[in-house]
Amino acid sequence: MAQRLTEDARGVFIISATPFTDDGAIDHASIDRLTDFYLASGVDGITILGMMGEAPKLTTAESEAVLTRVLKRVNGRVPVVVGVSNPGLDNMYALANVAMDNGAAGVMIAPNAASKTESNLVSLFETIAKALKDVPIVYQDFPLTTSMPISAGAFVSIVEAVPSVVMLKHEDWPGLPKLSAVRESSEKRGARRVSILCGNGGLYLPQELARGADGAMTGFAYPEMLVEVVKRFHAGDQDGAEDVFDLYLPLVRHEQQPGFGLAVRKEILRRRGIISSAATRAPGPKLDATGHAELTRMMDRLARRLDGRLAAAAQ
Amino acid sequence: MAQRLTEDARGVFIISATPFTDDGAIDHASIDRLTDFYLASGVDGITILGMMGEAPKLTTAESEAVLTRVLKRVNGRVPVVVGVSNPGLDNMYALANVAMDNGAAGVMIAPNAASKTESNLVSLFETIAKALKDVPIVYQDFPLTTSMPISAGAFVSIVEAVPSVVMLKHEDWPGLPKLSAVRESSEKRGARRVSILCGNGGLYLPQELARGADGAMTGFAYPEMLVEVVKRFHAGDQDGAEDVFDLYLPLVRHEQQPGFGLAVRKEILRRRGIISSAATRAPGPKLDATGHAELTRMMDRLARRLDGRLAAAAQ
Amino acid sequence: MAQRLTEDARGVFIISATPFTDDGAIDHASIDRLTDFYLASGVDGITILGMMGEAPKLTTAESEAVLTRVLKRVNGRVPVVVGVSNPGLDNMYALANVAMDNGAAGVMIAPNAASKTESNLVSLFETIAKALKDVPIVYQDFPLTTSMPISAGAFVSIVEAVPSVVMLKHEDWPGLPKLSAVRESSEKRGARRVSILCGNGGLYLPQELARGADGAMTGFAYPEMLVEVVKRFHAGDQDGAEDVFDLYLPLVRHEQQPGFGLAVRKEILRRRGIISSAATRAPGPKLDATGHAELTRMMDRLARRLDGRLAAAAQ
Amino acid sequence: MAQRLTEDARGVFIISATPFTDDGAIDHASIDRLTDFYLASGVDGITILGMMGEAPKLTTAESEAVLTRVLKRVNGRVPVVVGVSNPGLDNMYALANVAMDNGAAGVMIAPNAASKTESNLVSLFETIAKALKDVPIVYQDFPLTTSMPISAGAFVSIVEAVPSVVMLKHEDWPGLPKLSAVRESSEKRGARRVSILCGNGGLYLPQELARGADGAMTGFAYPEMLVEVVKRFHAGDQDGAEDVFDLYLPLVRHEQQPGFGLAVRKEILRRRGIISSAATRAPGPKLDATGHAELTRMMDRLARRLDGRLAAAAQ
Repeated sequence: MAQRLTEDARGVFIISATPFTDDGAIDHASIDRLTDFYLASGVDGITILGMMGEAPKLTTAESEAVLTRVLKRVNGRVPVVVGVSNPGLDNMYALANVAMDNGAAGVMIAPNAASKTESNLVSLFETIAKALKDVPIVYQDFPLTTSMPISAGAFVSIVEAVPSVVMLKHEDWPGLPKLSAVRESSEKRGARRVSILCGNGGLYLPQELARGADGAMTGFAYPEMLVEVVKRFHAGDQDGAEDVFDLYLPLVRHEQQPGFGLAVRKEILRRRGIISSAATRAPGPKLDATGHAELTRMMDRLARRLDGRLAAAAQ
Repeated sequence: MAQRLTEDARGVFIISATPFTDDGAIDHASIDRLTDFYLASGVDGITILGMMGEAPKLTTAESEAVLTRVLKRVNGRVPVVVGVSNPGLDNMYALANVAMDNGAAGVMIAPNAASKTESNLVSLFETIAKALKDVPIVYQDFPLTTSMPISAGAFVSIVEAVPSVVMLKHEDWPGLPKLSAVRESSEKRGARRVSILCGNGGLYLPQELARGADGAMTGFAYPEMLVEVVKRFHAGDQDGAEDVFDLYLPLVRHEQQPGFGLAVRKEILRRRGIISSAATRAPGPKLDATGHAELTRMMDRLARRLDGRLAAAAQ
Repeated sequence: MAQRLTEDARGVFIISATPFTDDGAIDHASIDRLTDFYLASGVDGITILGMMGEAPKLTTAESEAVLTRVLKRVNGRVPVVVGVSNPGLDNMYALANVAMDNGAAGVMIAPNAASKTESNLVSLFETIAKALKDVPIVYQDFPLTTSMPISAGAFVSIVEAVPSVVMLKHEDWPGLPKLSAVRESSEKRGARRVSILCGNGGLYLPQELARGADGAMTGFAYPEMLVEVVKRFHAGDQDGAEDVFDLYLPLVRHEQQPGFGLAVRKEILRRRGIISSAATRAPGPKLDATGHAELTRMMDRLARRLDGRLAAAAQ
Repeated sequence: MAQRLTEDARGVFIISATPFTDDGAIDHASIDRLTDFYLASGVDGITILGMMGEAPKLTTAESEAVLTRVLKRVNGRVPVVVGVSNPGLDNMYALANVAMDNGAAGVMIAPNAASKTESNLVSLFETIAKALKDVPIVYQDFPLTTSMPISAGAFVSIVEAVPSVVMLKHEDWPGLPKLSAVRESSEKRGARRVSILCGNGGLYLPQELARGADGAMTGFAYPEMLVEVVKRFHAGDQDGAEDVFDLYLPLVRHEQQPGFGLAVRKEILRRRGIISSAATRAPGPKLDATGHAELTRMMDRLARRLDGRLAAAAQ
């Protein structure tokens, strides 16, 4: 029986890449391996068909194929969130219903600039929630890409008006004061405390956890780091969490470059033996020889640091 | 046998609305009536699945259904251009091929902000043209919506590099000096003289014709005006063309408001008995009581002006 | 004694161009002639140092020189509003105080994208109003240029929170439904009824008056048209108002092109013998030979239409 | 005698903050201390009145006061670059001339979105260079803030057309492939090799140096790190450079948040005893209690890491 997303969600929901073959076809075998890899890394959930999953470049049929494949592979072990953002509401609803029928835990929606003002966002999400009945909704707050900012207060208004909005995917930038403002405003107004998982490649994860985030929802190619950081933090070991985080920070920062970073992420996953090709769909980023050498250098430095950590732990 | 779009295209290519029923389904009967209406108005071509045709809100299947319906109805009487803009090139190619297989004369493509600089546009259109083989391409230059401006010089570079780009849909704003610059730069560099048809609801049509445009590609709800203006202009009667244009200008200006204007356009077509419903797909514009009364007033004033013109002609 | 702007302001506040000599210096003699011309046209107020007045291209000293010159010339005959928008609040306050000390009736402020969300606008205007004490404020709502949209509801919140905001310069686009929404929301919430004057070159002036605007605040080079349209409308002659408006509409539309339109506007004022040079400050628009010929044609057509109207009236 | 900026510039040009007192006045004593601190840190140059120097919030008089103060204090020991970006070219020229008359080594200019396309940038910089005669120019490429992207090829065209453009301040994002493209395109076309110094808070400094940058031009509050990283890199110790960089990376990343980061930067400088107040001009960012505690934690972690490094070096 499928899990449904609630306000209690915490930990790491990994944003899944969508693997393609070199010629751009969906690579189903790699989807399976990638899903297994994420689960083996200890993630608490998986989010598919997000922006970094190149969702806007899939056909409707492909989106449905990807989501059914992943949901079948996960088989209820962790909740799966499906990105359904679409310029048209009818298409959004259709995909959301397919997702839920196949066992998704909820859907993720990023409003776009067509809404113009945050006042319109409240009524937009009321409309969506009504049409989607009780489907759990993740509000993706990513103005760098969507050009649709929202204030902490207006987001809390959505929480108050729309019970099925159970999670904020926080990736406004800069966003640290806003994350605190969402928690404070929510408490002050007696609104539900929704789950807040953070994106932006995890670049500010330790600070976000300290400010009240419940975990991460991002696609860093070393999910084991995200998992360990969040676990240590939740266990009270803030310094230990940051120590782990800092080891990976050069790569977190490298992968978090918009557009370009997706090529890095997929190449790391390819080098780690998880997906067969690092191809992104055109128009999309691609590493050249310099980019490959640069990445090799960073991965080598990470490996040396991880070895040093192991050695230190062994003493 | 299907006509293929060439650099010689001129006159009025009407941008077709996509008619929906009140509940948002494609309204095939209205598509037929609308197509017949456009043909009866004397248009020289029809463009479907453009932005004002709400293309981004259709599923792939719906886009294909609309284009086959229109192409069948037109049955080769005029060339039909199909908008195929898409965030992903593979999806763009797929739709373009379906369009051409069904008898389209060419495809229209609006680059988006992902290209960042105009240098990238040259290579983008080289890539697209290669993939689409010899499919005739209309470059839609609409930065107000796409956030992807291009200079006259860079557009001429595309013309030089990509033989299958045969037409510019000109709707940069303000765009009058640029239209002249495209013609001048093209001539100076010895580039092909491509067809230039103008959008922006026709708001600057007389000036654009005087600056070297070959006609209009826009969706004004009174296509007969566009046809008469272009015909008179081409016949050397510039003042007569402007006299006709000025009669309709209050409505041209009213319909040309981004977003809102589509509700106006569809409502006029509905009132004229051509489509059954003025519904746009959500999220989309809709006239309220004030908007209806305002439009009634403008249409009445137009009717009186047209009557006066008839009466004057009868004397 | 200087007039102070209040919620009762109505009629036409002309946006004054800032005349330069051919080499870009402030042209004080032309300022005087232009001011006299506006007053002779029957305007109800004058707004200076707006965006179309090229305010961002003046030094602080030049801004002060322009405002003192105009205020001295007007000498209290009509209220003068001074645009004081600035990236820094301290500079804004300084200019506002100079303006008020010299007899301005109020200041105009356009918030910019730095505010991000409309929630921030409420607190921004509270801060500004507090610093400016009781200086009357015009809120300029011009998102096409400022990239800072605001909903009707949020604007009414500003009206409720900030008593010194007495006027909305309405130029959101499309903005007709929003203008109605401001009036409706304001009435429903029992907020003050502020003055609404409309910009956008006057392109929608008849419709805006019908929806509850109190007049125009724009810089069309034939202010006598704006004055007559508003007067006729206020006298109950809506059709007469629109008849006058329609005569000028081809030029209204031509002048309303962002950037380019300023070159048109200044050239018309120059041809009418009011300012000595049509120069704009670099980087700025400039008419070439084609642009001049195009404008000549439009002005000739207007002259013929006005003659026809006079002849008809004489019969 | 003042140094003039040339294509040979390399190392670290620190972007200077502009210190204010708590009530927003220019703090001249802090300017002196800050200048001394930068010089003592071993920087190779200083850039003032950049965006992070809050230049748009200064009056003309204040800008001149700041630049004369800094130039006098530096007294020719290192080259000083003055940011002169302005919506109007005349104001830009005036400030540039004041800067050069007071001993600046060159000026920095960031084109803005008014240019629309990169083709226009070539002619814009030709115009500017002609007006500024032989004043050395730094092209600031910062599209995240200016919304004016440029391709590598178009930048090289500027280099070819405008001899006085001697440096690229590289802060396009993501920008690593572009930096390589500028170097490759320049070499291929036989263009001058200009200096490239990198911004973005230094977030990608090691990678940028490896791709051909000559150093950094950014304002990180620990300039000694930038200096050491660049020195080690230039001495061939790439790993040593990265080791130092990684120690500071958590703070680099924290300070590089647009807007918010300026409050962090100024607060670090204040805590280090260099400037008296961390105030930014309104509207500007400000740390609250949470932000202060968060920064304290990061600075403590850095101090421990630096201690560990010293201890390790002492063994």
